[in-house]
Amino acid sequence: MSASREDRLRAGDRRALARAITLVESTRPDHRAEAERLVDALTPTAGDALRLGISGAPGVGKSTLIEALGNHIVDRGLRVAVLAIDPSSAVSGGAILGDKTRMATLASRPEAFIRPSPAGTTLGGAARRTREAIILCEAYGADVVIVESVGVGQSEVAVASMTDLFLLLVGPGAGDDLQGIKRGVMELADLVCITKADGDLAAAARRAVADHRAALGLMARRDGDPVPVMSVSALTGDGVDDLWQSLTREYEQRRAQGKVERRRAAQRVQWMWAEVREGLIDRAAAAGLDDIEQRVAAGTISPTQAATAIVARITAPSEHP
Amino acid sequence: MSASREDRLRAGDRRALARAITLVESTRPDHRAEAERLVDALTPTAGDALRLGISGAPGVGKSTLIEALGNHIVDRGLRVAVLAIDPSSAVSGGAILGDKTRMATLASRPEAFIRPSPAGTTLGGAARRTREAIILCEAYGADVVIVESVGVGQSEVAVASMTDLFLLLVGPGAGDDLQGIKRGVMELADLVCITKADGDLAAAARRAVADHRAALGLMARRDGDPVPVMSVSALTGDGVDDLWQSLTREYEQRRAQGKVERRRAAQRVQWMWAEVREGLIDRAAAAGLDDIEQRVAAGTISPTQAATAIVARITAPSEHP
Repeated sequence: MSASREDRLRAGDRRALARAITLVESTRPDHRAEAERLVDALTPTAGDALRLGISGAPGVGKSTLIEALGNHIVDRGLRVAVLAIDPSSAVSGGAILGDKTRMATLASRPEAFIRPSPAGTTLGGAARRTREAIILCEAYGADVVIVESVGVGQSEVAVASMTDLFLLLVGPGAGDDLQGIKRGVMELADLVCITKADGDLAAAARRAVADHRAALGLMARRDGDPVPVMSVSALTGDGVDDLWQSLTREYEQRRAQGKVERRRAAQRVQWMWAEVREGLIDRAAAAGLDDIEQRVAAGTISPTQAATAIVARITAPSEHP
Repeated sequence: MSASREDRLRAGDRRALARAITLVESTRPDHRAEAERLVDALTPTAGDALRLGISGAPGVGKSTLIEALGNHIVDRGLRVAVLAIDPSSAVSGGAILGDKTRMATLASRPEAFIRPSPAGTTLGGAARRTREAIILCEAYGADVVIVESVGVGQSEVAVASMTDLFLLLVGPGAGDDLQGIKRGVMELADLVCITKADGDLAAAARRAVADHRAALGLMARRDGDPVPVMSVSALTGDGVDDLWQSLTREYEQRRAQGKVERRRAAQRVQWMWAEVREGLIDRAAAAGLDDIEQRVAAGTISPTQAATAIVARITAPSEHP
């Protein structure tokens, strides 16, 4: 049954993909074990998609831009999948991408697969599910996997840590919109795109492009060119093709330089340590060390003492031989 | 003997401080155990210094600025200690701060303690020693502990992760100097200071201040005011008092808001997990898993499988009961 699930998924069966993602989203231990088997089985042969992270402050027009870009990609004969990381959706009900009608024209196309954000618990849990869902989408045959950050907590960092390119969307307003960009997020950007560059906002968008080029020029990467800044109107379609060309140019260039593979390798190692940490926190809690973070934060025990205690406790001979 | 070492250190004995730092820099297991005992004993009663991180690209004038600022602080009747993180000094011979004559006037004052950067091995090792040395300096009675990043590898991130305020120095040149700022470092800054604002470079420094104010304004913190940007001339002394006033104002404000204590609490927890990770890497290596990072990076084993293997192996019943 598991083999046939893999086969159907590899054959591009959308329902098989949807069910497989439901499996990796489950927290039931037997589902979790099954999900890990599935992901491990698919990993070596999963296809090779452009993994594109997209973030931006609320109201910047993320859904509209993703729909316009997604349609543009599908028009080029490619398959696109849209995922989201939403650690808050356990509280909010997962409304951000949960409503497929927000991307109605894209959702209606057979070459597009849009996944509502799952009800999340922790960022770690939400990030793991999305990392696994990326593999499933690649095995399914997606050419581009878009991972949207909902902009809550550290979700931008999580998205950047699992994608090949991180696209930051910024509104054209010189004041209020920009306040919404969290500290540290601009530095994650591989490309910056000013949204709503049409009508009354066209002039403001041009100024925003110039401002961001200057700002990002001050923070040039030591090893490369400054971060590209462009503008787009999802309404008129102006700039959507330019954006897609820039994204693919950046991706192909990095691939040719071996940067994509190096970034993915580093991401896999990072993922491994994140999983080790999650596993060890569970064991430390079981060993009666569940309040140790609080004690270290409060300063009642030194970090070194606490670390020694954790390592000693979890590596001690099992009490259940 | 250990008790008298603590007493001498608490009494403000510079030689006792120098020897205690030599102890925490040692990699000998018996020294390490002794160093941990000393740091743990001093931690609860260590004084409360302003922990100030300073970084900037090579050639920006870090040593000159630190000397000018250090003298200014001592002139105010305060004690200052200067440390450095230099993961590269095992290779370079630790020359960056090793030469005390680079801060000759500051080094000659009894209220100042300047520590040459130790011969480092890994960034983790260098960071641990510096974190411990900060505690020693506080126990000794320093009012300000300056931690200099030498700008190699991830040393800026390490410095920012162990200080209350992170001051980024930037040269006045609009082009070449700025290229030296590594991606991600600007976002760590709590204050930015343009150096060499004198003579022929005064106009360029003014422009650099304006440019950085604009750029950092685009990346305003959601929770607060934009990052202060100022200029200083270590040569003429112009701006040194302004810088010191800004630093203390920022520090006192954050302290009143509880931000300093929250940041330190988060840093302690982060430090604990870094130590746990170092301890576990050793054990994973001893368990024959020393190439597991490479295998995960290469994609021959999935991150989840590897994590499961590491957690299982290091928590397994000991083979040497």
